[in-house]
Amino acid sequence: MRPSGLRRLVILAEGQFAPHSAKTAFGVIRYARDDVVAVLDSTRAGQNVASYLPGHDIPIVATLVEVLARQDPPDALLIGSAPTGGRLPDPWRSTILAAIDAGLDVLSGLHMFVGDDPEFAAAAAKRGTRIVDYRRPPDRMETAVGRRHGPGKKVILTVGTDCAIGKMSVALELRKSALAAGDRAAFVPTGQTGMMIDGWGVAVDRVISDFAQGTIEWLVEEGEARADWLIVEGQGSLDHPAYSSVTLALIHGSTPQAMVMVHKPGLAEHDFDHLPEASFPIASLPGYIDLHERVAGLIAPSKVVAVALNTSLYPDDAEARRIIAATEAETGLPADDPVRFGADRLWRAIRDGVNALPWVDPA
Amino acid sequence: MRPSGLRRLVILAEGQFAPHSAKTAFGVIRYARDDVVAVLDSTRAGQNVASYLPGHDIPIVATLVEVLARQDPPDALLIGSAPTGGRLPDPWRSTILAAIDAGLDVLSGLHMFVGDDPEFAAAAAKRGTRIVDYRRPPDRMETAVGRRHGPGKKVILTVGTDCAIGKMSVALELRKSALAAGDRAAFVPTGQTGMMIDGWGVAVDRVISDFAQGTIEWLVEEGEARADWLIVEGQGSLDHPAYSSVTLALIHGSTPQAMVMVHKPGLAEHDFDHLPEASFPIASLPGYIDLHERVAGLIAPSKVVAVALNTSLYPDDAEARRIIAATEAETGLPADDPVRFGADRLWRAIRDGVNALPWVDPA
Repeated sequence: MRPSGLRRLVILAEGQFAPHSAKTAFGVIRYARDDVVAVLDSTRAGQNVASYLPGHDIPIVATLVEVLARQDPPDALLIGSAPTGGRLPDPWRSTILAAIDAGLDVLSGLHMFVGDDPEFAAAAAKRGTRIVDYRRPPDRMETAVGRRHGPGKKVILTVGTDCAIGKMSVALELRKSALAAGDRAAFVPTGQTGMMIDGWGVAVDRVISDFAQGTIEWLVEEGEARADWLIVEGQGSLDHPAYSSVTLALIHGSTPQAMVMVHKPGLAEHDFDHLPEASFPIASLPGYIDLHERVAGLIAPSKVVAVALNTSLYPDDAEARRIIAATEAETGLPADDPVRFGADRLWRAIRDGVNALPWVDPA
Repeated sequence: MRPSGLRRLVILAEGQFAPHSAKTAFGVIRYARDDVVAVLDSTRAGQNVASYLPGHDIPIVATLVEVLARQDPPDALLIGSAPTGGRLPDPWRSTILAAIDAGLDVLSGLHMFVGDDPEFAAAAAKRGTRIVDYRRPPDRMETAVGRRHGPGKKVILTVGTDCAIGKMSVALELRKSALAAGDRAAFVPTGQTGMMIDGWGVAVDRVISDFAQGTIEWLVEEGEARADWLIVEGQGSLDHPAYSSVTLALIHGSTPQAMVMVHKPGLAEHDFDHLPEASFPIASLPGYIDLHERVAGLIAPSKVVAVALNTSLYPDDAEARRIIAATEAETGLPADDPVRFGADRLWRAIRDGVNALPWVDPA
């Protein structure tokens, strides 16, 4: 690693380099400060990341050999997507081993720990490289203690009407605008991609259920040592058939004074491809916002203070702005698309909204 | 183990043999079919379990040596309480080792796996005894798939206004009454004590958060192979600062067509001794019942069809019956204390209530 602490990454996303199937790759390219040297995806070799993410001039190549031959080779291989079925396919294994042999660290957010694989572990030990499994949970085994936030600390959690619609991106954009406005703000990563981007945090979905809320409580306490405004990355959604308990662990573990509802207009059903015949429609906002406040309020008072829209299904800017205005009218809350139009306006509205809450110390 | 599959147990509950601190011991004594030969608690030596649980004539003794000297020695040591702070105190370790050396199996529901302790594992291997860690999760790492229940299958989940107020006992009493009424019913154990009692299940609080709902979905599917009426043991409470996410995993993972609300009148605050200065009052029933139906309904329709009261804070039977009647009036639902007065009446009301639900196939 270079003295700055930043890395030069090659991202493995074989056969999957698309926004939905390679969420980690896209998140790291968009938000991490590390340099991304290349993306590995033989099915898209010859393309450039800029076609997917304008402004990011990164070649997509077929083999690690090509990347290692560059004048500015990478120092780490980051696994940027999850293999279908959970097991590493043989070509991925070969690439990981070749990366270790070439002296690269391996960075993974998979549930399956790369560092626990005897072959990878032996290769890394021999070559003196590191394998970092971001999803490995902390050694803590403590349940929540019902801790209250420190004086002057404000905790904002991003929640949403589905998973994979941009709760992390919204949190990162809000942090950026908060810092630009001179507010002492920290992003609190709760998933592997957020951890890769910000260098700390806990992948909450990997924590043993009994300790999820206790671990989040502790994580927020760590965040309070870093800043006054904590913007906690949300996970899943309260109405998701597979992940709602992780969402609730974040709501009750972080006891946010305020929440930001992330919503993707135009999406009809949950991202839930396991069982196509089951139908889980996306909630409509007003009742869903009310339900979040009631559920959060079982532990500590909380209010949804803004709606962050992901308008990516509407290419026309004017149409997107019409949807934003309609959402403000429907919910009575400030709304915007912070990724598309910037988060400065929304951040100011959120900050004022939070400071006006009766249970928040504005100091 | 004897051919019947039943065991002869000695239960370790050193310094903790009381209903609240030795929940597992009390649950096993009350509901398991195994014989309990003795309880180990030197601070209560000379007493009898019958003073705590009338009808259970079991000596409480100071040392394992006394138990092994009996004519009908035990074949397994069951750890019936959790050590404060999570680590096994040295005297407990000595007792466990002595039990293994005497040829006893060791049964544990602790988060800390006894079988992973090198000293215990070596001793058990040498002596040829088994160590069973009930909280060890299944090897499955699968998220929920949104599976629907089989035709004619009815799933009832016990939920509650607090943890440790009797959700498991209510489920076991209902199963008993259902079987007595000729209904094909199974108890679905979701915690270590329920598993010790019924011999199968998953300790949900030990499952990795991402797989909690998927594991419960699979567990219910296993239950559907056993019976038509599944009475799923609930965990925690939806408003518990530490365990609400486990509760929600059960609600959304088992997608019960109906829920039974367990409530302990007279309890003012949550069983939450970690941080005495924080106050988490017990919810009042009508709003809390409505919230459960709304939250469950995010995934699948569900109704609270009965209230099961734990009236143990009211020694007078007439007073308990007045509270039951008042609860029926307050909620408009059938109510009773199934542990105190039997569950036959409540089971009939639940069965009729479930069969009348529009989303349930009464066949």
